[in-house]
Amino acid sequence: MRILTGLQPSGKLHLGNYFASIKPMVELQNAGQNEMFIFIANYHAMSSANKGAELQNSTFEAACAFLALGIDPAKCVFWVQSDVKEVLELYWILSGITPMGLLERAHAYKDKVAKGIEANHALFSYPVLMAADILLYDAKLIPVGKDQIQHVEIARDLALKFNNNFGEILTLPEAKIAENVAVVPGTDGAKMSKSYKNTIDIFSTDKQLKKQCNLVVTDSTPLEAPKKWQDCNIFNIAKLFLDESGQAELKARYERGGEGYGHFKAYLNELVLDYFGGARSKYEYFITHKSEVRDILDIGAKKASELANAKMAKIRDLAGVF
Amino acid sequence: MRILTGLQPSGKLHLGNYFASIKPMVELQNAGQNEMFIFIANYHAMSSANKGAELQNSTFEAACAFLALGIDPAKCVFWVQSDVKEVLELYWILSGITPMGLLERAHAYKDKVAKGIEANHALFSYPVLMAADILLYDAKLIPVGKDQIQHVEIARDLALKFNNNFGEILTLPEAKIAENVAVVPGTDGAKMSKSYKNTIDIFSTDKQLKKQCNLVVTDSTPLEAPKKWQDCNIFNIAKLFLDESGQAELKARYERGGEGYGHFKAYLNELVLDYFGGARSKYEYFITHKSEVRDILDIGAKKASELANAKMAKIRDLAGVF
Repeated sequence: MRILTGLQPSGKLHLGNYFASIKPMVELQNAGQNEMFIFIANYHAMSSANKGAELQNSTFEAACAFLALGIDPAKCVFWVQSDVKEVLELYWILSGITPMGLLERAHAYKDKVAKGIEANHALFSYPVLMAADILLYDAKLIPVGKDQIQHVEIARDLALKFNNNFGEILTLPEAKIAENVAVVPGTDGAKMSKSYKNTIDIFSTDKQLKKQCNLVVTDSTPLEAPKKWQDCNIFNIAKLFLDESGQAELKARYERGGEGYGHFKAYLNELVLDYFGGARSKYEYFITHKSEVRDILDIGAKKASELANAKMAKIRDLAGVF
Repeated sequence: MRILTGLQPSGKLHLGNYFASIKPMVELQNAGQNEMFIFIANYHAMSSANKGAELQNSTFEAACAFLALGIDPAKCVFWVQSDVKEVLELYWILSGITPMGLLERAHAYKDKVAKGIEANHALFSYPVLMAADILLYDAKLIPVGKDQIQHVEIARDLALKFNNNFGEILTLPEAKIAENVAVVPGTDGAKMSKSYKNTIDIFSTDKQLKKQCNLVVTDSTPLEAPKKWQDCNIFNIAKLFLDESGQAELKARYERGGEGYGHFKAYLNELVLDYFGGARSKYEYFITHKSEVRDILDIGAKKASELANAKMAKIRDLAGVF
């Protein structure tokens, strides 16, 4: 099965990103049973506040981060969206068969309008570009959260319509709903999210990382007293790094008393550094070896382009592009 | 001044197309005072009923027709829109700064909605693609009819916004409103238009052309009687081909009597064949020499691509495309 995933062009990844989506994706890649197509969605990023040249840098940082975290170009096709321009041609061709109503009913746009925010055209038409991302590569399974199911259905609708209008050529994709998604609490106990400013970032400096771990909110149980691990944010984050025996050990330390939350925060900091130590070194290496990263991305872009070109030659003929 | 014009991808051109828009364009080209950029807008054609592979053929016929009618690749840059893919990348980049309201207020879309027709997304976003067509080539003047002024204003708005957001790089275009546009009546006296089915087609067969000339509606003044040239559709079409003395001569024949409308229809047929004889032969030649036409279009595409690539390199940097 060919599985396709688009990644946000940001290197500012936190534990929530990692445990909920990156780790499962890397595991899927390493299992080797499927063809993985993974791209950095930098064109999509233009549909939200685009700060211009800064996007170029965050796209590069994202490439470094994902490579550091285990995306392996030998085991998947890994490229930057804008390196395969054909996707925009398919996007335009699909636009000609996309009823406005289909897009007007899409959530991301409706939500903006409901909030009184003036949406831009790229945000509005984002589901068409996502359809092109999927259909260009004959991707069969699209791992998505529940909020993205509708977009995969739009891609499927457009594939059906294209096939009916012009000729059977596009593969109908299916949403692959992630199950058992890790729930990662932020430093304040709410879901970890950049917009809540409660993240622990994987690639921040040692000093920043320590600071973020120290920000985890706890109750005021005194140092000597036994503590409840059940509701403790520190524990709930730390357990992501621990197997059962590690968790049991930590629970025991909570229940034993004699250690304060400061000790547990320091332990969390250690766990993060241990777990991501290798990734953090790799990230630093990639960040300072730009041309090496560019070469890796070129290999992916070449593979993706070959498929895209072959597919587009057929699509162009059917849709009547000269 | 750099002037840019997009042409419909259809070879089914009639006298109305010729006298109202093609002839003035060719004269502008031959005057040699401006840089002319002329392209066949085959991507745009996908926003209306796209019949698939047929569009490829009509794009080719359009190329043959315009070359036959005097578009001269030595005097202008002449290409097919889809041969320069960069236009779609600029279209996407502009989409990220295009407020939905700007498009929702555009006439072509509003008209469809008002008529209860479900518009497709390509039609809706057509002004953004038109803006990309214009801004990619730093075109300064865009010859348009009154119904297209708004679209040039949208292109100007987007250029201003891009320049403000990312850096001063896009040229602000201006609409060049055509003056003294020839009024060409159809065979029924209404404006000649494909949708009214009242056209006289330049490249139809001799037989079809004769038939179309015979379809011109007249009154029933008998053959012997003097006739009024003032309200006669035949006269009003024929005069487009005649200088003042030619017109005076024809008027005299009307007033003299002794000739029926059949004679004047035959005369109109002669005028069309005389005027377009050269173009009709060239069209036949091009239609049967596809690779020669392809070579001509490749030259234009190469010139346009060079400019587009240089421009896009700067635009990409400013907009943050990796």
